[in-house]
Amino acid sequence: MRLDVVTIFPEYLDPLNVSLVGKARHRGQLAVHVHDLREWTYDRHNTVDDTPYGGGPGMVMKTEPWGDALDTVLADGYESGAHAPALIVPTPSGRPFTQELAVELSERPWLIFTPARYEGIDRRVFDEYATRMPVYEVSIGDYVLAGGEAAVLVVTEAVARLLPGVLGNAESHRDDSFAPGAMANLLEGPVYTKPPAWRGRDIPDVLLSGHHGRIARWRRDEALRRTTRNRPDLIEHCDPKAFDKKDREMLSILGWEPDPDGHSYGRFWRRAPGMEE
Amino acid sequence: MRLDVVTIFPEYLDPLNVSLVGKARHRGQLAVHVHDLREWTYDRHNTVDDTPYGGGPGMVMKTEPWGDALDTVLADGYESGAHAPALIVPTPSGRPFTQELAVELSERPWLIFTPARYEGIDRRVFDEYATRMPVYEVSIGDYVLAGGEAAVLVVTEAVARLLPGVLGNAESHRDDSFAPGAMANLLEGPVYTKPPAWRGRDIPDVLLSGHHGRIARWRRDEALRRTTRNRPDLIEHCDPKAFDKKDREMLSILGWEPDPDGHSYGRFWRRAPGMEE
Repeated sequence: MRLDVVTIFPEYLDPLNVSLVGKARHRGQLAVHVHDLREWTYDRHNTVDDTPYGGGPGMVMKTEPWGDALDTVLADGYESGAHAPALIVPTPSGRPFTQELAVELSERPWLIFTPARYEGIDRRVFDEYATRMPVYEVSIGDYVLAGGEAAVLVVTEAVARLLPGVLGNAESHRDDSFAPGAMANLLEGPVYTKPPAWRGRDIPDVLLSGHHGRIARWRRDEALRRTTRNRPDLIEHCDPKAFDKKDREMLSILGWEPDPDGHSYGRFWRRAPGMEE
Repeated sequence: MRLDVVTIFPEYLDPLNVSLVGKARHRGQLAVHVHDLREWTYDRHNTVDDTPYGGGPGMVMKTEPWGDALDTVLADGYESGAHAPALIVPTPSGRPFTQELAVELSERPWLIFTPARYEGIDRRVFDEYATRMPVYEVSIGDYVLAGGEAAVLVVTEAVARLLPGVLGNAESHRDDSFAPGAMANLLEGPVYTKPPAWRGRDIPDVLLSGHHGRIARWRRDEALRRTTRNRPDLIEHCDPKAFDKKDREMLSILGWEPDPDGHSYGRFWRRAPGMEE
């Protein structure tokens, strides 16, 4: 996979030399090119922004440096054999970046990131390149950053760890939160390792029982407990078919009951008190 | 504000020297201390992880290095006059990190981040420190990273830009997506700057009209258009009182109607076709 990043803060992308992404580059699984947008400015002050049409606070990034930068990056990439580029635009106005989208992007051969600063990039840049390649405007979450660079690190890491051969033995995505399978839509519960006692705190007895069935059940109950507390939205969107009899018992203990409108596979809902439905 | 980060990849946090956070440090608005967890290991291999109790794939980070590291960080901080620490634990199992939470954290004087690798940190570490300070387990989004360091960069940047005096004139949070006010719960629409024509693409005429009311209306229509497309969940959770007559006309054009059950302030819903309710 080839990644290009065009930014006014190239040094912000230094973590792409570290850890998982750094190792993947070293092994040749990933080629990463970071470009300084200001190389495509031609005035003394290396201007990349100007005031917004229609007025208002803040500055807007100009079409010309982005257009010239993307043309050069595309020409270089194609020349070195890359193909099927996609533009990844981090913006709070984008569609949510999810694990599903990470999987989709991990199957593409070439991603070009355009992290913006200020109020964003002149819209015409994306209108222009959208005629030649897919443009993904993505938001990594409901909060505002100073620029798109941190989002590039997030998307890159989420995508890179899905590439074949990138994850080592110490890491695993079989039991990931948000991974497909038995734990789909449930958050992972607590984990423990040696020593069995630390500062007067013991690990739960069941984990020493050697009884695989009981351990699996305990883990699933803890996952239900954490998910109902931290992410009630995930329970609400679960297919109830995913919950077995023991899950339903645990959900009832936690204050969740099947949809009362009589559908046997309706959504689960929280009992009062504290209901906000 | 004081920030401490304990990590096995200190160099991943180098972006905290750059841009907005770097400048805030330089101006003395923010003190950042990055610590290498392996300083608190005492064996030849600087071991920070071990196999999980109860079996399963992956490795779990051990109690002792984290406990010793946090004790030292806390003692150092208190000695230099810091107070009221809070522990910020990036984990996909946490509650969602939102702009609201960024505001809450920006009002605290001292944040200590514990980005984990592998399957996470032995639960007892958080049980222990939760007796002494608030522990925020936060997830920056529904995707899986290789470790918590990228999440620390995200949270730090979202929090730092809210500190008094940190944002310059070129930046602004008055019109941010997710900011309170008229645009609450709507994504921002497209932005444009000079030149008025670029590669045969003109800016929308209305932005040259000089008519503030029409420009504001156009921006709001574009915000509605983008929000219905990229974040239907935000429209669904909007208080309909936030929509005026023109908003409702635009929403109708976009295929959204008020809740049909007769509540004058019910939620909006999408018309068929393509309904996924």
